[in-house]
Amino acid sequence: MVNTRIVESLCSSQPDDSITIQGWVRTKRQLKEFAFIEVNDGSCLTSLQVILDTSLSNYEEVLKKLNTGASVKIDGVVVTSQGKGQRIELKAYSVKVLGGADPQTYPLQKKRHSFEFLRTIGHLRPRTNSFGAVFRVRNACSMAIHQFFQERGFMWVHTPIITASDCEGAGELFHVSSLNPKTISCVNSQAGEYTQEFFGRPTYLTVSGQLEAEIMAMALTNIYTFGPTFRAEKSNTSRHLAEFWMIEPEMAFYNLQENIDLAETFLRHIFQYVTNKCLEDMEFFNKRIDNTVLATAENIINNQSERISYTEAIKLLEKANVKFEYPVVWGLDLQSEHERYLCEQIFKKLVIVTDYPAEIKAFYMRLNDDNKTVAAMDILAPKIGEIIGGSQREERLDILEKRLISQEIQPEKLWWYLDLRRFGTAPHAGFGLGFERLIQFMTGMSNIRDVIPFPRTPENVEF
Amino acid sequence: MVNTRIVESLCSSQPDDSITIQGWVRTKRQLKEFAFIEVNDGSCLTSLQVILDTSLSNYEEVLKKLNTGASVKIDGVVVTSQGKGQRIELKAYSVKVLGGADPQTYPLQKKRHSFEFLRTIGHLRPRTNSFGAVFRVRNACSMAIHQFFQERGFMWVHTPIITASDCEGAGELFHVSSLNPKTISCVNSQAGEYTQEFFGRPTYLTVSGQLEAEIMAMALTNIYTFGPTFRAEKSNTSRHLAEFWMIEPEMAFYNLQENIDLAETFLRHIFQYVTNKCLEDMEFFNKRIDNTVLATAENIINNQSERISYTEAIKLLEKANVKFEYPVVWGLDLQSEHERYLCEQIFKKLVIVTDYPAEIKAFYMRLNDDNKTVAAMDILAPKIGEIIGGSQREERLDILEKRLISQEIQPEKLWWYLDLRRFGTAPHAGFGLGFERLIQFMTGMSNIRDVIPFPRTPENVEF
Repeated sequence: MVNTRIVESLCSSQPDDSITIQGWVRTKRQLKEFAFIEVNDGSCLTSLQVILDTSLSNYEEVLKKLNTGASVKIDGVVVTSQGKGQRIELKAYSVKVLGGADPQTYPLQKKRHSFEFLRTIGHLRPRTNSFGAVFRVRNACSMAIHQFFQERGFMWVHTPIITASDCEGAGELFHVSSLNPKTISCVNSQAGEYTQEFFGRPTYLTVSGQLEAEIMAMALTNIYTFGPTFRAEKSNTSRHLAEFWMIEPEMAFYNLQENIDLAETFLRHIFQYVTNKCLEDMEFFNKRIDNTVLATAENIINNQSERISYTEAIKLLEKANVKFEYPVVWGLDLQSEHERYLCEQIFKKLVIVTDYPAEIKAFYMRLNDDNKTVAAMDILAPKIGEIIGGSQREERLDILEKRLISQEIQPEKLWWYLDLRRFGTAPHAGFGLGFERLIQFMTGMSNIRDVIPFPRTPENVEF
Repeated sequence: MVNTRIVESLCSSQPDDSITIQGWVRTKRQLKEFAFIEVNDGSCLTSLQVILDTSLSNYEEVLKKLNTGASVKIDGVVVTSQGKGQRIELKAYSVKVLGGADPQTYPLQKKRHSFEFLRTIGHLRPRTNSFGAVFRVRNACSMAIHQFFQERGFMWVHTPIITASDCEGAGELFHVSSLNPKTISCVNSQAGEYTQEFFGRPTYLTVSGQLEAEIMAMALTNIYTFGPTFRAEKSNTSRHLAEFWMIEPEMAFYNLQENIDLAETFLRHIFQYVTNKCLEDMEFFNKRIDNTVLATAENIINNQSERISYTEAIKLLEKANVKFEYPVVWGLDLQSEHERYLCEQIFKKLVIVTDYPAEIKAFYMRLNDDNKTVAAMDILAPKIGEIIGGSQREERLDILEKRLISQEIQPEKLWWYLDLRRFGTAPHAGFGLGFERLIQFMTGMSNIRDVIPFPRTPENVEF
């Protein structure tokens, strides 16, 4: 008999249907002549209730093995549930335990475990309600992103992970080497000889696919990346990962305003899609994790973001009747406390800040006519701070070269990037979204390590 | 006026429509009173023909700049084409050159360039017909993969790139370090001290997400990975990349046969989807690159693969009236020449070989009852050889431990992998598909470096 996913049985199975389900036992309640078990297969939050009784030939024997965590295959008939809380349940006529789970040693017994503890059993935590919900939302969110771009004719491009570019200044880099650091010749290594290296030169893990994304946009017009990026910063916080996924759309012929419009529509689409697709999971987060997540989603879906310039933001912050830890001065970057004040206290929604001082932003951002600011935009979210960062790119060769030099980057290193301005240059723009920060924002999960299957942070690389 | 993508103008624009297009000039033909240019924006293979005449106020001036590679913004009115080969063309009433391209220095002049030369200008090659087609097919293929799995309730999971596992034996590993190899203390490094390292232990770039995919399948039932993987083997061939993308579905409660059925349906779906979505590009490949690609696609869509056991394959090869370079002996792995003989000479279609000798396959493949073979399967394709490799996984703890030890892998290193068998183990299976090999197979592109935007191979890490 073909296996029925539990989400399908709960949604579509009708009384008297004969079905086979497979999954893992979550709980067992044993009465005198019969027993209930809850079986979950990860396809949805709710487990299917199964009734076993003494009419099963192996009732006694099988019951002993049906502990939390055991995997089972059950043939049964769907019956209308007599109990509360579920439409249907399954009356088993054949139960097979595929794999047991010793209650003395299986770590996931029926009780609340701290997220901290669950991180130590990253190989088992996907079997809990919270992590099942996180990974279903993560999957839905990924598909929302692909759907959004594909419907608009954007192509998914795969930018490289191993790169020779170290000049973006976006953070600390991981080094990649084909040589074993334990056996590498010190003399060679110290002299900076790379002749034995796979690539013949120093290589790193990428911090962003943007520069390569620009290459693709300058040929295919509208593209996006969706892939892993890396930072070797030893930030042991609830918002930093050494390895995280980023989405970076890049659009030829877009200016800053069009870029902002796209980013806003994009966020709205994602929240709409995920609340439709994973309503049960989102309600779970709202009830158990953070009781503002559904309201936040609704806010984003229904309201325009506030758009202000950096200069206006500074004025508002100067007027604020708050003692900030960091100074509020035109020319200094906004700190998290400033960003949160704008979102949470002043506007109570997403805030898009534009036109930052050139000196605090990357070389590739387009210089505005005032010669002081660049066509940058950051989207700030309550609690999270910056969730999207983007800009119109500098398409003018001479200005770009000056900006590189003023930021002490050798133009020769980026000869190919400059070529894009030498041959058929065009206005273009793009933005970057940290995928895990988005999932954090969406689910209310407070630690970023709990929204990615296998988090990489200082000292943590298990699984 | 809103920009119209060229693919939309070619498909949907009607005579008398006023539209704005933006893109890059491919060619210019200048006659006395008027000129034609072909403009491409990467949205499809065909360029839009634009007519310019002296009614344009800046006709003379603009014409000088409209060289191959220049970027333009053109407002015009759609007219029925008088010429052959296109339904419509655009009569320009305003032409703006956004960025010029000096014909003396722009490398992509209108002539055929070798793929080898184009690899040296990886930042410009996406602007050619061949590479535009490759990247459109690559995008369509990615979406075919997501669609196939999502429709069946599989979740996309992101397995880690940086890993501490070095015990899979799937090939040479790249080392990842947060320390600069030029400045690292030799003493520390040589003594194997990792106290200053980000992760406090040796780390590598992943060669496969399978083991982590199994974790996710043992909680969520049906999942797939789609991400980058790495090999530090110095193979300078047309089929090897140091960095490539893999798709690895993993299904709880699947046996080998179900795994094979899924893989076959999967390939059929992808070929069907891409030939529908990118017919123009596929016809281009068939005409310019390899005149068998459309027939191959049709073959895969309409025919069942041949399924034979490894033992049967050996018998067929022994009977073959051919002198192979490598010996055909039960117990030795099939070589590329053997695989191709089976596909190209004997069956003339995809061949699925199952049940290989345990000794030549990885520890995680399920031991068959004969105690000699494992429940493995390789899908072999004409010209390409192995395109998919998969297996039912060993779900029995005791046998898995024995297999690890016989392959000299310390079981403690994989404690979490063994836990999956200790707690709620279940039959499960999965396979891996090398994305770039698939694109090669599909497009007929003979060098794998030409089906990924920025190939990484020995000595090549530019862009």
